[in-house]
Amino acid sequence: MSKTMLAAVLHGIKDLRVDERPVPELEPGQVLVRVRRGGICGSDVHYFQEGRFGSFAVTAPFVLGHEVTGEVWAVSDGVSQPAVGQRVVVNPARQCGHCDYCRSGRGNLCRNVRMLGSASTKPPTHGGFSEYLLVGAEQCFPLPPQIDDGLGAMLEPFAVALHALKRAGSVAGKQVLVTGGGPIGLLTAIAARACGATTVAVTDPEAERRRMAVQVGADSALDPTDASFKDQVTALTGDGFDLLFEASGAPPALKQAFEVVRRGGTLVQIGVFSAPEIALPVNQLLVRELQFVGSFRYGNVWEEAIRLVASGRVNLQPLISRVFPLRQAADALALACAKTGVVKVQLDLL
Amino acid sequence: MSKTMLAAVLHGIKDLRVDERPVPELEPGQVLVRVRRGGICGSDVHYFQEGRFGSFAVTAPFVLGHEVTGEVWAVSDGVSQPAVGQRVVVNPARQCGHCDYCRSGRGNLCRNVRMLGSASTKPPTHGGFSEYLLVGAEQCFPLPPQIDDGLGAMLEPFAVALHALKRAGSVAGKQVLVTGGGPIGLLTAIAARACGATTVAVTDPEAERRRMAVQVGADSALDPTDASFKDQVTALTGDGFDLLFEASGAPPALKQAFEVVRRGGTLVQIGVFSAPEIALPVNQLLVRELQFVGSFRYGNVWEEAIRLVASGRVNLQPLISRVFPLRQAADALALACAKTGVVKVQLDLL
Amino acid sequence: MSKTMLAAVLHGIKDLRVDERPVPELEPGQVLVRVRRGGICGSDVHYFQEGRFGSFAVTAPFVLGHEVTGEVWAVSDGVSQPAVGQRVVVNPARQCGHCDYCRSGRGNLCRNVRMLGSASTKPPTHGGFSEYLLVGAEQCFPLPPQIDDGLGAMLEPFAVALHALKRAGSVAGKQVLVTGGGPIGLLTAIAARACGATTVAVTDPEAERRRMAVQVGADSALDPTDASFKDQVTALTGDGFDLLFEASGAPPALKQAFEVVRRGGTLVQIGVFSAPEIALPVNQLLVRELQFVGSFRYGNVWEEAIRLVASGRVNLQPLISRVFPLRQAADALALACAKTGVVKVQLDLL
Amino acid sequence: MSKTMLAAVLHGIKDLRVDERPVPELEPGQVLVRVRRGGICGSDVHYFQEGRFGSFAVTAPFVLGHEVTGEVWAVSDGVSQPAVGQRVVVNPARQCGHCDYCRSGRGNLCRNVRMLGSASTKPPTHGGFSEYLLVGAEQCFPLPPQIDDGLGAMLEPFAVALHALKRAGSVAGKQVLVTGGGPIGLLTAIAARACGATTVAVTDPEAERRRMAVQVGADSALDPTDASFKDQVTALTGDGFDLLFEASGAPPALKQAFEVVRRGGTLVQIGVFSAPEIALPVNQLLVRELQFVGSFRYGNVWEEAIRLVASGRVNLQPLISRVFPLRQAADALALACAKTGVVKVQLDLL
Repeated sequence: MSKTMLAAVLHGIKDLRVDERPVPELEPGQVLVRVRRGGICGSDVHYFQEGRFGSFAVTAPFVLGHEVTGEVWAVSDGVSQPAVGQRVVVNPARQCGHCDYCRSGRGNLCRNVRMLGSASTKPPTHGGFSEYLLVGAEQCFPLPPQIDDGLGAMLEPFAVALHALKRAGSVAGKQVLVTGGGPIGLLTAIAARACGATTVAVTDPEAERRRMAVQVGADSALDPTDASFKDQVTALTGDGFDLLFEASGAPPALKQAFEVVRRGGTLVQIGVFSAPEIALPVNQLLVRELQFVGSFRYGNVWEEAIRLVASGRVNLQPLISRVFPLRQAADALALACAKTGVVKVQLDLL
Repeated sequence: MSKTMLAAVLHGIKDLRVDERPVPELEPGQVLVRVRRGGICGSDVHYFQEGRFGSFAVTAPFVLGHEVTGEVWAVSDGVSQPAVGQRVVVNPARQCGHCDYCRSGRGNLCRNVRMLGSASTKPPTHGGFSEYLLVGAEQCFPLPPQIDDGLGAMLEPFAVALHALKRAGSVAGKQVLVTGGGPIGLLTAIAARACGATTVAVTDPEAERRRMAVQVGADSALDPTDASFKDQVTALTGDGFDLLFEASGAPPALKQAFEVVRRGGTLVQIGVFSAPEIALPVNQLLVRELQFVGSFRYGNVWEEAIRLVASGRVNLQPLISRVFPLRQAADALALACAKTGVVKVQLDLL
Repeated sequence: MSKTMLAAVLHGIKDLRVDERPVPELEPGQVLVRVRRGGICGSDVHYFQEGRFGSFAVTAPFVLGHEVTGEVWAVSDGVSQPAVGQRVVVNPARQCGHCDYCRSGRGNLCRNVRMLGSASTKPPTHGGFSEYLLVGAEQCFPLPPQIDDGLGAMLEPFAVALHALKRAGSVAGKQVLVTGGGPIGLLTAIAARACGATTVAVTDPEAERRRMAVQVGADSALDPTDASFKDQVTALTGDGFDLLFEASGAPPALKQAFEVVRRGGTLVQIGVFSAPEIALPVNQLLVRELQFVGSFRYGNVWEEAIRLVASGRVNLQPLISRVFPLRQAADALALACAKTGVVKVQLDLL
Repeated sequence: MSKTMLAAVLHGIKDLRVDERPVPELEPGQVLVRVRRGGICGSDVHYFQEGRFGSFAVTAPFVLGHEVTGEVWAVSDGVSQPAVGQRVVVNPARQCGHCDYCRSGRGNLCRNVRMLGSASTKPPTHGGFSEYLLVGAEQCFPLPPQIDDGLGAMLEPFAVALHALKRAGSVAGKQVLVTGGGPIGLLTAIAARACGATTVAVTDPEAERRRMAVQVGADSALDPTDASFKDQVTALTGDGFDLLFEASGAPPALKQAFEVVRRGGTLVQIGVFSAPEIALPVNQLLVRELQFVGSFRYGNVWEEAIRLVASGRVNLQPLISRVFPLRQAADALALACAKTGVVKVQLDLL
């Protein structure tokens, strides 16, 4: 096996290079994965375009990417699972397993978590857009044959959507609105429909995204800037939506959410806002007894995500817009930045 | 309007007659429904065949039936909803709305409930297999055009299944087993699949019922008497099912359920047992930390049931095996008793 | 029995008169209560001082009061409970019992609710500061001998606190902060302690209220304007509070709540804000996966409130600061307006 | 530091010897604890008296004990918490932190758990009745000064009780029955009272245990064999208990529980049965919509248990009946076997 590998390294704003780097060495409890496919996430786009993602500024060159599938290439002594040769999807968040959050089933809030391809650490933690990747054995989930490498690399953003659904409680029989028709919004709509929501509506000011929402299974797609928007909601739901997933990070969408949610309803925040504070009608929360809950990444939803995709209950294929070879990683990032005409752009690392 | 109507009256064991009876008079808060379709339930069959259902013995002739749709014919003063002419499904359980159970959202446990077509009261409460039926305005749920009279009369047993699902918590992403392929078992399997269960298996010793289960959407149907049954479960689920719905009322099914449920899993009891006591491996409940929960009729699931059927998320049509005119009610009951080759038998009261 | 009675009628801003009014006549399902004690609530104070409470403006003279105990004086035909002579506390919110919110156990969100002593209706609905009061039989909860008339009249605001606790989930073993040391804040602190919170802190900028908080059982009372406030929280809790109850309606208190809540924690909003919108750090809700939930009045908590007081698990006596005879209702309201030196002011109607 | 230590080793039925054994050597991620106090549990008694506990037979001599406090004596490289010199209570269940059960917050069901002082492994895993004990760093919880060594050694059985309460949902405002007045039953009663249960009753056929129950805070203690038992329950609760904790492992207690639980109520099983199957009235579970849930050891309740004891909300001191020096371990076990006149017997290892 070669001692070097190729990786997509971000050196500065819009300066992504495919560099040769050393293959990482095995450590106790870890496995080496030969990466096969990697999806480009919104945070990759932010790092690429702006050199930062929220409060995390890039302080040194680092490998991007955290939506990856691959094949287990080598395992350290004592690791019984996964086995060499196994195709896996990688949970990019390495949790300690022992802090109070991990122990209480909220590993997504782990005190000691390390995230692949993230500038939340100093120096940044290298990500998965590289031919080989070293991760903890417990970060690998085997892929059944029904899930190919491309679909497998959709599991990470799908886990975000599925976790948001869990934060909302059961969606079965509920009337659901998703605000924002980007990748996470579409995945949430798909997941909500598969989990028994009886009405799934998506709002987005862009007509193309509304078309896509209907194409992937939303029952209706509404323009939130339309003067008759509230009348449309009443016609659709009667008293308003039971559950709303705010996936746009746009303040007007969140304010509107408070107006179209039913008494006792639940708002789940998935989108990140640029502004540090958003003005909200808090008395509405009180007199209509709403729940407004945050959803952060994914908890313990990987097996369920895999089963939902493998069983055919959800079809994520239409969201994969374009696949580039690793050598063209910069072009792939540039296309992902464009945001129009594409949902998910992936890199093929084989 | 005529002062008399026809109704299917049970006079004794296997003695069902279509009698002429007075049309009931309106009382405050009530509405008169012109019944259009009525489904025959297992309790109707028990009353017909045995003159009793569990501990409820028939003490006087009474009208059977509680799975009914109809059209609102007249409303008492002050009733604004439903309107005359509205097609409705009837919730056969009239709850008081004010006892501690009703107030806490558990109206199915109401202290003062009256159930249509039931010998739980002395004398029995007349049911809905009659041309006209007097019910509380709040017992009527409007039917949208997508739900015809026959499908509407399936909503009551579907509500039983949907309530059982709610008792289990969220089924999304879960591996589910339904023991017993009768009407309630099949409806539970259909509901579980529509609500995001990734594996839905049904067990029944009868091959014909297993075929039906697969036909209506179960992923697999297993013979619980097969020597390799447990191996089949392991192959299907790995560590066992997350959720089990015991819909057979057969003691071996319940015992087997404790063997094929995963640690931390949930068993929901829907089927009624003939025996007063069933021997259970309670230490398993403890060391594997299971939940064993009862599910009684339906709580507040009617609107959701209507939306699930109207949206096309579930298709209950294949369960309606045969429809008889009211005049042939006795034949209909006799066929429903046979249980082979039929799932649901209905009466057409138009 | 006399055909007239005395009642405290609000005629305009700060114009409260004790008028002679007709005793109401019994209607079906209702009972006539001889009122014995009535507590003055913040909403009574708002009506008295400003002629309005939030968006509810007073449009005609009406009887104030909704925190009342009394004795059942007469019952309409068919009412079996409560019996004449029974001492009761009155739930001032009459719920319909049959709308979708009532059916799902959320009667506090009832579509058809009528609230005693409230200008939410046009004309306003008369309240309970009158010698006789007509209410639905189901609005009356019997008082055991351990709860005298004064304590009984504390049950309504205590129910507000207890409902807020339920909205937070279990408080047992949790570290709890209550922001705002008014009557509802103090009652929430008392309830939280009785329900197993291991740390109960109260914040209030006024030293006298902080003293009162400690006196009724808070483990500590903090000044939220103190420069070392956050350090004090860290010393007290380590990582922040598990649960926060915002009972002040002060925007800085709510913002501060987002800073001192632990990851995964819950904020319950009980206080009403004057401003229509409050700017909040929503990204914190997301990345720390908080729940922000509204709590509106009281759900089905009356029996539990009665049991908690009767069992001696909570002691509400120290909160009753002063009792005036009905004739001095205007003085009582004036003192309640002062807010300093008093927690709860009551009227004796005997 | 000496290379050998003393430990209470079980060599066979009623053959407990204080042997000299080597002090264990540090391994990565582990800490060496100088044990100070150890409580004798029912499982220790079973091993001592019968050579087995349930299905776990003793196959080789091993050190008993798993309710222990001590002082951290040495820590392996890289362990930052706990620090040397810190007094700690030890969670005797070492969980892997990474299996699906651990990840979902149900570490008590961990696939790879190892339990101190247990014959569930072959050979048995040595326990904590030894001067030094090697455990994972994450198994140690610091003890605040308010909790001395003896109280600290009560935290393990208290965690069992507290976990059972969590399995029941919130107990605040509920009417609670605990069947069985042994150590776990008493601890459950104490915990239920501290967490806001408004009625806490304990049943036990032995008068002495009933006296003890009342002494530690139960509101009433009932003899379940009394002919008027059900009348007493009705007098106490009205409609039956909301929550029942079966802590006796006696089949009649469990059957009786089904008779005195309120509709919609919850039964939590804590006691282990000798018989493999118990006959239960399952139809009652259905028509009264009960929940019957198992509770196994303790989940993530250690911090809460420590806070409850440290805050003085619960007082466990009266349960410590007798403390023996390590040298008299056999006498201590013999007394613990007697069961009359003692609740908890501890060993002093200093």
